[in-house]
Amino acid sequence: MKVITSTHGNGGRLTHQLIQDVFKKHLPMADLSDNDSCPLPSENLVVTTDAHAIDPIIFPGGDIGKLSVTGTINDLLASGAKPLGLSASFLLHEGLPLETLEAVLFSMGKEMHEHDMLFYSGDTKVVPGNGEMGLYISTTGFGSNIQNPPHPNRLREGMDIICTGPIASHGVCILGLRNGIDLTKNIKSDVASLYPMVKDLFVGDLIECFRDATRGGILTTLYELTQDTPLVAELIENDIPISKEVKAACEILGLQPLEVANEGVALIFCRAESTDSILTHLKQYSTGKDARKIGTLRPNSSRVKVHLKTSIGGTRAVAWTNAENLPRIC
Amino acid sequence: MKVITSTHGNGGRLTHQLIQDVFKKHLPMADLSDNDSCPLPSENLVVTTDAHAIDPIIFPGGDIGKLSVTGTINDLLASGAKPLGLSASFLLHEGLPLETLEAVLFSMGKEMHEHDMLFYSGDTKVVPGNGEMGLYISTTGFGSNIQNPPHPNRLREGMDIICTGPIASHGVCILGLRNGIDLTKNIKSDVASLYPMVKDLFVGDLIECFRDATRGGILTTLYELTQDTPLVAELIENDIPISKEVKAACEILGLQPLEVANEGVALIFCRAESTDSILTHLKQYSTGKDARKIGTLRPNSSRVKVHLKTSIGGTRAVAWTNAENLPRIC
Repeated sequence: MKVITSTHGNGGRLTHQLIQDVFKKHLPMADLSDNDSCPLPSENLVVTTDAHAIDPIIFPGGDIGKLSVTGTINDLLASGAKPLGLSASFLLHEGLPLETLEAVLFSMGKEMHEHDMLFYSGDTKVVPGNGEMGLYISTTGFGSNIQNPPHPNRLREGMDIICTGPIASHGVCILGLRNGIDLTKNIKSDVASLYPMVKDLFVGDLIECFRDATRGGILTTLYELTQDTPLVAELIENDIPISKEVKAACEILGLQPLEVANEGVALIFCRAESTDSILTHLKQYSTGKDARKIGTLRPNSSRVKVHLKTSIGGTRAVAWTNAENLPRIC
Repeated sequence: MKVITSTHGNGGRLTHQLIQDVFKKHLPMADLSDNDSCPLPSENLVVTTDAHAIDPIIFPGGDIGKLSVTGTINDLLASGAKPLGLSASFLLHEGLPLETLEAVLFSMGKEMHEHDMLFYSGDTKVVPGNGEMGLYISTTGFGSNIQNPPHPNRLREGMDIICTGPIASHGVCILGLRNGIDLTKNIKSDVASLYPMVKDLFVGDLIECFRDATRGGILTTLYELTQDTPLVAELIENDIPISKEVKAACEILGLQPLEVANEGVALIFCRAESTDSILTHLKQYSTGKDARKIGTLRPNSSRVKVHLKTSIGGTRAVAWTNAENLPRIC
């Protein structure tokens, strides 16, 4: 079995061959010259940056290659931009099997091709092996600004909150794999690009704010969006989409599903009169078939920004903790 | 001593505080909003990408923070672009002391301020600790295209090759530190931005090609630039600038200095009539005070692209090896 060695990283001929024979084969290069850089395509560019580290690097539903591209796309969407391309640097761990690297790059290339994205610039380094991880991928995404994009400063009281899909699958899937938990073995990560589902919604001015809910789950997203506003998110616990398996796993493992990471789930904020047509649109897509309205923004000066109406009729304030209890997924 | 823990990486409140209180304090943010993205400044943008991994992260002459910024600047210059700013993602190793992180970010911010560069976008993740490394930094540099920049396709026979400073100091310094070699203890890394020294040269059309010689040393740079041309680099061994200490260390350690990494040394290719005025200019700067003409491009169909005229009067062809013998510096 061929594996990555420190020699692949020292800048000599083997580094050069790895880039020519493996990276350039899979990735849709914007410029095939050997220059280290590439001119960018247009005006109105938006840039996002993301470091992707996950263990294991291949998991039910995807791998770090797919994750690095879809995560970048979803970040660009959250910034009100249409994805154009990305640059990426790869920190390869010594001992990484070459066929694993190829599988990851194939996934990356596949997602990029499906979104007509170009690869603008890249770098690889080899670092000492680190258990099972295999590689880290850092991406910088480039997008073109949408006119009048959704934005947190458009949040107002009375707006509805839509969750585009079942929460916490990604985090619970990875936690289960890392710890060999039998209970989670049928749970797949939700890793997916949200672009096909939301691109038409962005044009019609229907959406006031859009944010994919990744690390820290929908709880962190809600806190980040409301913490400097006089608003709180009032959620109906029973309306929050979550699969039975994920819910059961969270209960047994003592996890708060609102805090668990997603990789293909977003929160959409909209005027109440738009909610039904947005839901109808979302439900046409596999990533949106379980979309639900989960609550409403209410005026409230409380520092506790998420209030949960529970199934037994009470209301529970959910604090933004340090999330000490969150599973490590990288 | 406060250290980075996995909780700093899970997206909860502690992640947020780390970004607000530590990262934003040191880095010249283009946009202080909490958005994940930022619009880019202008047309004619050029992008470069670099992963920075070095062990130890702090070394004589610099640290990984300085290295990540100056490496990005030098890459942009090699692409014919003036540096404008960068985005960066940080993979922090669990156990990294917070004061070490602050020192690295301070260095990064200092270099960025000195070059009027802005920080456009960032991300942090926490990964399991890995011995002494501490952190990896991946940067994406943004620059604005210079008109008619130096470019490898302008290389012609008869052009002179200038080396801007003593070679191999960076690689030998790091190798010595990693292995506790007494012999190298007075050797400092050459890590430096080349922008102040070369910015005026880029305007006057004096330079045909410019490339910083990092991983793989000046040998790799020469091979990369000439391998698809009918040219070879004929070097005069005695004219290649190298400090006595570094030369002695390379001899004792069995290293080929032409292959050892630099972080503040470039090769400049120019028409023979421009050589003297370029050298006069370079010598005004600390990074260029030892600049020398080291050889000439000659027509030759050989696949061995570097020919060394040795001090005893012979000529030795230097192959581009897999550089198996190179010290690991990350």
